Amino acid sequence: MARAHWGCCPWLVLLCGTSWSPNDPGFFSRLLACAWGHTKPVDLGGQDVRNCSTNPPYLPVTVVNTTMSLTALRQQMQTQNLSAYIIPGTDAHMNEYIGQHDERRAWITGFTGSAGTAVVTMKKAAVWTDSRYWTQAERQMDCNWELHKEVGTTPIVTWLLTEIPAGGRVGFDPFLLSIDTWESYDLALQGSNRQLVSITTNLVDLVWGSERPPVPNQPIYALQEAFTGSTWQEKVSGVRSQMQKHQKVPTAVLLSALEETAWLFNLRASDIPYNPFFYSYTLLTDSSIRLFANKSRFSSETLSYLNSSCTGPMCVQIEDYSQVRDSIQAYSLGDVRIWIGTSYTMYGIYEMIPKEKLVTDTYSPVMMTKAVKNSKEQALLKASHVRDAVAVIRYLVWLEKNVPKGTVDEFSGAEIVDKFRGEEQFSSGPSFETISASGLNAALAHYSPTKELNRKLSSDEMYLLDSGGQYWDGTTDITRTVHWGTPSAFQKEAYTRVLIGNIDLSRLIFPAATSGRMVEAFARRALWDAGLNYGHGTGHGIGNFLCVHEWPVGFQSNNIAMAKGMFTSIEPGYYKDGEFGIRLEDVALVVEAKTKYPGSYLTFEVVSFVPYDRNLIDVSLLSPEHLQYLNRYYQTIREKVGPELQRRQLLEEFEWLQQHTEPLAARAPDTASWASVLVVSTLAILGWSV
Amino acid sequence: MARAHWGCCPWLVLLCGTSWSPNDPGFFSRLLACAWGHTKPVDLGGQDVRNCSTNPPYLPVTVVNTTMSLTALRQQMQTQNLSAYIIPGTDAHMNEYIGQHDERRAWITGFTGSAGTAVVTMKKAAVWTDSRYWTQAERQMDCNWELHKEVGTTPIVTWLLTEIPAGGRVGFDPFLLSIDTWESYDLALQGSNRQLVSITTNLVDLVWGSERPPVPNQPIYALQEAFTGSTWQEKVSGVRSQMQKHQKVPTAVLLSALEETAWLFNLRASDIPYNPFFYSYTLLTDSSIRLFANKSRFSSETLSYLNSSCTGPMCVQIEDYSQVRDSIQAYSLGDVRIWIGTSYTMYGIYEMIPKEKLVTDTYSPVMMTKAVKNSKEQALLKASHVRDAVAVIRYLVWLEKNVPKGTVDEFSGAEIVDKFRGEEQFSSGPSFETISASGLNAALAHYSPTKELNRKLSSDEMYLLDSGGQYWDGTTDITRTVHWGTPSAFQKEAYTRVLIGNIDLSRLIFPAATSGRMVEAFARRALWDAGLNYGHGTGHGIGNFLCVHEWPVGFQSNNIAMAKGMFTSIEPGYYKDGEFGIRLEDVALVVEAKTKYPGSYLTFEVVSFVPYDRNLIDVSLLSPEHLQYLNRYYQTIREKVGPELQRRQLLEEFEWLQQHTEPLAARAPDTASWASVLVVSTLAILGWSV
Repeated sequence: MARAHWGCCPWLVLLCGTSWSPNDPGFFSRLLACAWGHTKPVDLGGQDVRNCSTNPPYLPVTVVNTTMSLTALRQQMQTQNLSAYIIPGTDAHMNEYIGQHDERRAWITGFTGSAGTAVVTMKKAAVWTDSRYWTQAERQMDCNWELHKEVGTTPIVTWLLTEIPAGGRVGFDPFLLSIDTWESYDLALQGSNRQLVSITTNLVDLVWGSERPPVPNQPIYALQEAFTGSTWQEKVSGVRSQMQKHQKVPTAVLLSALEETAWLFNLRASDIPYNPFFYSYTLLTDSSIRLFANKSRFSSETLSYLNSSCTGPMCVQIEDYSQVRDSIQAYSLGDVRIWIGTSYTMYGIYEMIPKEKLVTDTYSPVMMTKAVKNSKEQALLKASHVRDAVAVIRYLVWLEKNVPKGTVDEFSGAEIVDKFRGEEQFSSGPSFETISASGLNAALAHYSPTKELNRKLSSDEMYLLDSGGQYWDGTTDITRTVHWGTPSAFQKEAYTRVLIGNIDLSRLIFPAATSGRMVEAFARRALWDAGLNYGHGTGHGIGNFLCVHEWPVGFQSNNIAMAKGMFTSIEPGYYKDGEFGIRLEDVALVVEAKTKYPGSYLTFEVVSFVPYDRNLIDVSLLSPEHLQYLNRYYQTIREKVGPELQRRQLLEEFEWLQQHTEPLAARAPDTASWASVLVVSTLAILGWSV
Repeated sequence: MARAHWGCCPWLVLLCGTSWSPNDPGFFSRLLACAWGHTKPVDLGGQDVRNCSTNPPYLPVTVVNTTMSLTALRQQMQTQNLSAYIIPGTDAHMNEYIGQHDERRAWITGFTGSAGTAVVTMKKAAVWTDSRYWTQAERQMDCNWELHKEVGTTPIVTWLLTEIPAGGRVGFDPFLLSIDTWESYDLALQGSNRQLVSITTNLVDLVWGSERPPVPNQPIYALQEAFTGSTWQEKVSGVRSQMQKHQKVPTAVLLSALEETAWLFNLRASDIPYNPFFYSYTLLTDSSIRLFANKSRFSSETLSYLNSSCTGPMCVQIEDYSQVRDSIQAYSLGDVRIWIGTSYTMYGIYEMIPKEKLVTDTYSPVMMTKAVKNSKEQALLKASHVRDAVAVIRYLVWLEKNVPKGTVDEFSGAEIVDKFRGEEQFSSGPSFETISASGLNAALAHYSPTKELNRKLSSDEMYLLDSGGQYWDGTTDITRTVHWGTPSAFQKEAYTRVLIGNIDLSRLIFPAATSGRMVEAFARRALWDAGLNYGHGTGHGIGNFLCVHEWPVGFQSNNIAMAKGMFTSIEPGYYKDGEFGIRLEDVALVVEAKTKYPGSYLTFEVVSFVPYDRNLIDVSLLSPEHLQYLNRYYQTIREKVGPELQRRQLLEEFEWLQQHTEPLAARAPDTASWASVLVVSTLAILGWSV
């Protein structure tokens, strides 16, 4: 997992909601765990929140005064003859992490939570957000803003209908509403005599003015061939071949997600935190390639790598990022059909293409192709995981020595593991903000320590580390939970049940093209059996130096079916509020399974290579199959990571690895009934008559 | 299962399709197995199909000459100025089984398959159906009809666009298109300059004339109070209370599914094969109750039971079935909001209600309430299953004696089990056409024997019986597979893996409100493990003297979440083409589970009480937990059915039951590795040092 939610997309709150009913009492706590945000944790215990009912209102120091900016925004609204203006928290590419210059909702409201929508009318201003952020919003917003403790477009529209007069115009930036979100606003407003008005100039930006942080401008660079699965020319040909085979024979594909353009051209940059992308669109037609980005950011070598000086079908013409709408509009005049993935396309693009010229799928062909790694990409991702295991093992060894000294806290620990990763070959920083959580903090869904707010690591507490790295060859994500002292029986039981869940799903054999949603309960069964569970998803796709949460692979209902060559995390957990948190996360490759009878079956091959904590495993809960699986996995870790540790002269770590991967032996089961049947069985094996 | 598909609804072909991609090579075979039709099986091996490419065409005797009826239909179309007319295979209530007078598509085309849509233009006529029916269609249709081997509205609209001129009008009967189907036609035709035209007088009926079978006219009767969970007054009050609690406070609920009206008023009849319903609608408002049905079918006692002579909020006003549209239109003029379940409402009702007066959910409150049985309904359903077990056990004992004589065939066997059921108290006939299939026939998805076409039962073959009864207290559905001779090792393995699947799902503990889709793979895991699987769903809801396939409970993606008090079948299977078929189906009640740690968890309580075939169980494949579960289940069967057999003096059957429910003992596992770990474990138990 990571602190952020499953997938590079702000629609996650909705996604999570689809699997549970909002009427369900547990809905919000699960939503919380499902759509883990990326903001700083807020101490919910504090009373340091605004009170708008006193005169004058009480405002804590954390509040931002928004009176002037609201006045300025309303002037802009008046110019456009708007009764209301919608300010979503998204950017134009459905990015999981948002650049500072895109934090419009945070800037105008003061509220910095990762999820929430603001709406301003001429008289009122309001924010809608989910339960994770209610306290934070009360600490950050001044009394210009109402807080609505709801999510989705329906409550916003209900409010709008009471706040703005009939005939009123509701403005929005079409690049900040996904097609789906726009449709739900449009549907809800139908017949209400209120009009949705698309305004391409963002009104908040106009008010923000020179204070707005600049758009990133670091170089955009090409990956070395050693780190790519195919050349960009091969990828372009592959997409064009899919266009020709498509029933509707589209003449072009439009790519809106930044990872799509980055993948297609094997280009990277650092515009987005943790994601090596750059602001861009691509219009790939049957006879041309247009890359919309800031041309000045390409070196002459990169321009030449892209054949950008020609105009043929294998030449990448670079057009300015801001030209994408006009360019699509011009292209749409012809006899064309433009193929888009609706999940990652914003209304601002969609509205430019006449309906009859649109070819829509949920995901673009690039998104679908990228999900299945070819053999070189598989080898690259695996190699990055071996080096990543070295960094994590170094950290675990370091913790074993230093935690007893009482000198390690969650934040300094996170710095160490980030440093160890940084020392690995091809490192390009963490793939998300490291979750380093001790004791009760590990039970908080969106916890990461800060320099100021953190907890000391101790041999008396469990410690959860969820972290990952970006490497030129691959992106990693792994979670281990450890205890250096004497865990309670319940901690061991819970840990072992989480481990069984991880094993049961990892070793599952299932038919090709099974959806993850159909099998994810195998990761929960051992917990359910005892009345335990976890409130988040079970895994997500991962990229080759791309997103750590790479859609559309995973175990959610809207993920695509599993196929050979996909990578997904497998990460059951258990969280005891106020006490501890457990999560065991591995990345696994989907591979063909050999079955007794012939058929097209798949299973998982785990490529994360760090042993689990023996101190927390209750062997008596494991079946013979679990033990066999675990010991085989440990053997694989020895074979993959052992030589690497030796080569690097990390002999202490090598010793540690040998100890922690010693085969586990079966112990007596707990329950008498199981034992008695077992005895009968074994006596039968031994040839005794019973 | 049953021969018909999961659920009382013709949309099933689409439902099944959602879980698999049509691009998947196995899609159609699975679709076939998923949406098992209700028509007579057709011998696909025969070459007795039409040949329209010769001159004159070759037409087998099974073909129906449709020239005259088509000419008459086109005259009707001309009167309405139509370029095309759509003839779906559905009726006006989404019934699983269709009355003869509703078989319009079968009558006009000659093709009697349970799925398929016909479209007639002034020059051409065509049928779209899925692979189950391609041969059948070629045997039954004359050369007036094109056969299109596709399903869904898209290929129909694509064809229409080439066949009818711009400006053309496409007529349809609004009572034969569901809201969803209408929307997909409407969407596909948008911008095409072809218009969908709703015509309430069915044009096929006009042509059919006096030849059309009459609408059923048997009495509509009230269930005795002993067989109802609540009075109709209590149910009406319950629905009204849900109306008041609903966010949008609807003023009325409109019920379109026949089972909804039957359930609400505790009324039954026999209009539909296997389903004890009558053609009806109900408009339940906050101050009145209107039941649309043929008034002459109610006795004076039933009219008095319904308080039909008054007009207050607890009086049922009976209006004629044909008045429903006008009555809804009149009601819609007021300040009202009408609540409908979109899944069971046809466009003919939907189009009468102004959009702003509609309150839509997927299922009506009656459908949702009916899904959860109260304690009396649970007791009634359980009691019917005890008597049903007596009938099935009598049949299994009878088979054991008679099959070796060589005098039993699939059809005569089916007659015997139907007869035994008929002798049970409160019997009201079978709940679907009995599937009685020997040897290779059991591998055919939609097989039922006929008097003319059937196979002899033999001790050398497996035999599959899937059957159920309608009783005044409950509806039953059970499948058992048996072998009276020496099954092959593979047959035993497959049977045992199916049994393990049944047990693994039946004993699963899962959180309240989990959807069936999330857990149904537990019924498949043991098969998957060996490269085996089955191509149909894993279970469906069941009613109290209502539908044998009662939506919306079940394990499909569009079923609602599991809740305490629901009943579902659990029915994994395995089918070896050309050899044999296995299915083990039980009905189970969803109950609260007691877990080690407190929480809201559910599990299943199986209420089908017929033992599995010991001759087919390979005990070495069962885990200690499986054996424990099985032996506990057998103990329950003894306790529930034993006394009933004794009371009825069915002593031979009682003896048989005792033998077949003897506890099973563990045997040596097959695999050496499992055995070795087991030995270590047990030696540890025995206190030996290892």
